[in-house]
Amino acid sequence: MAETNTIHLPYSELVSLLEAIFIAHGVSTSNARILAENCAGCERDGSLSHGIFRMAGYVSSLDSGWVDGQAVPEVEDVGPSFVRVDAKGGFTQPAFFAGKPLLIEKVKQTGVAVLAIRRSHHFSALWPDVEPFAEEGFVALSAVNSMACVVPYGGTKAVFGTNPVAFASPRAGKAPFVFDQASSAIAHGDVQIAAREGHELKPGMGVDRDGEPTTDPKAILDGGALLPFGGHKGNSIALMVEILSAALTGGYFSGEFDWSGHKGAQTPFTGQFFVVIDPERGGNDAFAERVAGICELVLEAGQDRLPGDRRHLTRARATTDGIPLSVENYEKLRSLSGA
Amino acid sequence: MAETNTIHLPYSELVSLLEAIFIAHGVSTSNARILAENCAGCERDGSLSHGIFRMAGYVSSLDSGWVDGQAVPEVEDVGPSFVRVDAKGGFTQPAFFAGKPLLIEKVKQTGVAVLAIRRSHHFSALWPDVEPFAEEGFVALSAVNSMACVVPYGGTKAVFGTNPVAFASPRAGKAPFVFDQASSAIAHGDVQIAAREGHELKPGMGVDRDGEPTTDPKAILDGGALLPFGGHKGNSIALMVEILSAALTGGYFSGEFDWSGHKGAQTPFTGQFFVVIDPERGGNDAFAERVAGICELVLEAGQDRLPGDRRHLTRARATTDGIPLSVENYEKLRSLSGA
Repeated sequence: MAETNTIHLPYSELVSLLEAIFIAHGVSTSNARILAENCAGCERDGSLSHGIFRMAGYVSSLDSGWVDGQAVPEVEDVGPSFVRVDAKGGFTQPAFFAGKPLLIEKVKQTGVAVLAIRRSHHFSALWPDVEPFAEEGFVALSAVNSMACVVPYGGTKAVFGTNPVAFASPRAGKAPFVFDQASSAIAHGDVQIAAREGHELKPGMGVDRDGEPTTDPKAILDGGALLPFGGHKGNSIALMVEILSAALTGGYFSGEFDWSGHKGAQTPFTGQFFVVIDPERGGNDAFAERVAGICELVLEAGQDRLPGDRRHLTRARATTDGIPLSVENYEKLRSLSGA
Repeated sequence: MAETNTIHLPYSELVSLLEAIFIAHGVSTSNARILAENCAGCERDGSLSHGIFRMAGYVSSLDSGWVDGQAVPEVEDVGPSFVRVDAKGGFTQPAFFAGKPLLIEKVKQTGVAVLAIRRSHHFSALWPDVEPFAEEGFVALSAVNSMACVVPYGGTKAVFGTNPVAFASPRAGKAPFVFDQASSAIAHGDVQIAAREGHELKPGMGVDRDGEPTTDPKAILDGGALLPFGGHKGNSIALMVEILSAALTGGYFSGEFDWSGHKGAQTPFTGQFFVVIDPERGGNDAFAERVAGICELVLEAGQDRLPGDRRHLTRARATTDGIPLSVENYEKLRSLSGA
């Protein structure tokens, strides 16, 4: 099925290429590896709005001096079930990996623990952060706030970021059940892709610079804003994400940080919240089987697929055939790496 | 503004009246007090779909033998941050109050804790469960599954309950920020009220017995079902609620319990999940002020009010003037109490 202008790259090769790009733009070796694996994983799974599409934004944010690619996160043990991490102005993922072992230790010891990351730049999908917990048998919920681009329900001025929430749970006999959804009606990356490809959006996704509803992705990007999903209910979730990811962690709210002095900056400078639970403590000895059972019921009731299912199919294909990249994108990446 | 057929009852008098009803229908004294305060609090706050409107359902469920009003919950300490409660077939609220002191002790000691309640009947709003945590300085998230009345997104058979999620956070200088929202497009109680009062619903709320969209609340109640809010995103939240409230706790899924042998039974027999966090562990020394700040930003952006605000206004009025009840409803309550 390969088109003539498409190449297929093994995951490890894409990781190496992205790693070289990060290093070429000032990221430390250890941080570069983490970011490259994250971004290549998104591309591999078909999460294209968080895959190599993001590399230009990573690079311009680094080059602008807005994000510190060399940052060494500081982990604080602040309670038997609570870990804080100061990302020190770097990307979130290295801070997350710095805090994760202590978090897991606490979850095993006490049954549940919180990880609160602050002063961090999250520029990727959330599912890569939660899915591995479920693969280890834990239930994980995470939220991250971003940059103000969503108007409150009934309001006209952007306050919230797209503020995704991700959830992962073990599921017997299958890949974990995982969802990762913006509390906006659409992800910002998808608006960017639509604008680039010239697609119209469905109604209800956003407003223009005057606060009027629009289906033009460019009008949303050019001074307009997104709407929360599901009216006032999605709005409440967006606000909860600000509270958990910024107020609780000590990070900035989505509308609060000032990147005006950093031309090219694209990465939100906020915080991230995790709560991770050991379902074994629930004591019913059948948690993963029960999750598999309710997922089956949902499919039997007529839903065509569960979130994450298509991603795992895409991953399986990429694992066999390699990750499909257009030659044009491949050349762009090579050029960003300085090769 | 009192209408001629409206009386105003002090909260304590309504509690006593409801307590008498519960006791008259086989509830133990200690359980009756908890349930009466909960239901009277909903009526006082204007949460009318969970106020005295529910008493007939409480009574018929008790009379049917479906729920055990005498149940003595069993609290299990299963980890430094994890409490389980077996409600033993009784209402959830007594089980919740039985587990709450240990939960709070654990939250203070470790920074976060889970409370997992199973074999429980929740027939009220969720905000009364979470709001008091925020009044004590904690952040609380709770979810409860109910009875199958919501079709999965894209499906035709009801699998989920209305599956509400409630969240409460301290907010400096004001009542806590609290939301309590069904993951269905509308709460089941509101459909019942619309059916009783003969109102049509907005489109997108539910389907009839053939799975076709309808705005007739009676068609939804008569073999039809509700829809999730916000399409596939609300659907994912509904499924997460089943996982947390039933799979994790050891309770039944919303479509799983069998009440067919109990004519008049209306209370779902499921489970409830809580996670409660001590925001002081976040270490930013300004959590409640930060929450107040983001709430102000949302109002300044043009949103007319935050969830819970109207409820607190209604409560303040009821505290001054008494809780308004129609004479007809008052007489019904007196009759249910056997007076």
